[in-house]
Amino acid sequence: MRVVIMGCGRLGSMLAGELDAEGHHVTVIDIDQAAFNWLGDGFSGTRVVGPGEDSAIQEVAGVKHADVFLALANGDNRNAMAVQVAKHIHGAPRVVARIYDPDRAEVYQQLGINVVNPTTILDQMVREAAFATSPESDAPSSDGDGV
Amino acid sequence: MRVVIMGCGRLGSMLAGELDAEGHHVTVIDIDQAAFNWLGDGFSGTRVVGPGEDSAIQEVAGVKHADVFLALANGDNRNAMAVQVAKHIHGAPRVVARIYDPDRAEVYQQLGINVVNPTTILDQMVREAAFATSPESDAPSSDGDGV
Repeated sequence: MRVVIMGCGRLGSMLAGELDAEGHHVTVIDIDQAAFNWLGDGFSGTRVVGPGEDSAIQEVAGVKHADVFLALANGDNRNAMAVQVAKHIHGAPRVVARIYDPDRAEVYQQLGINVVNPTTILDQMVREAAFATSPESDAPSSDGDGV
Repeated sequence: MRVVIMGCGRLGSMLAGELDAEGHHVTVIDIDQAAFNWLGDGFSGTRVVGPGEDSAIQEVAGVKHADVFLALANGDNRNAMAVQVAKHIHGAPRVVARIYDPDRAEVYQQLGINVVNPTTILDQMVREAAFATSPESDAPSSDGDGV
């Protein structure tokens, strides 16, 4: 599949590397060229420098022909804007935005945007790791394990 | 239960508010007093200003009598240090640290620390949201829903 990822931080670069290794056609966009250092040397995908919410930059990154667009930059507004441009202007069939603010996440959800909200996800994971662990046991909880 | 949370950011404050509302005895530590603005007005727990990895600050926060210590500050090293102080110096029976670096997360896991690693968790959530969604459907994916 053709995947365009906006945001080459820890998460974006990890996904880019994995998807690239799995044979997907990956393009990564980041406003800061230094962010591409997160990518391993093995990364064979394309790097585009610029604001990924910008329609012209998305054009360069080939969002028009992308199967998936992932907005994983820092900043809820940027991510939300980026996926809407990708979806409504370039017709990206599948878009996912990382949105930290739970309230905004719900709103964007209602706008038909696939949202991943780290705050509520981690809230649950931390609670499970903290309260589902035997105090006597030093072993990692299944949650801890799962991460 | 007595819960001490280091780091009053989006996640720490959300957990603090929830646990407080559920009747737990919650103490929040943050190096920046302004961070307590994340807490809702309804929060009836204790606020301690200072570096939560500092043994003396943990003493003030009552970690000695805490059932759970959560290290949710920014900075893997601070969180890892804090849970080790809480566990080995103050005898906190249950500790959880948020560790962003997957490699470090694995190491701390092996040290018997419950670790929640946002990077690998979100990697999975984003993949599911992106690849398990019907392109035709605008409906939030179950993953999106779940967050």
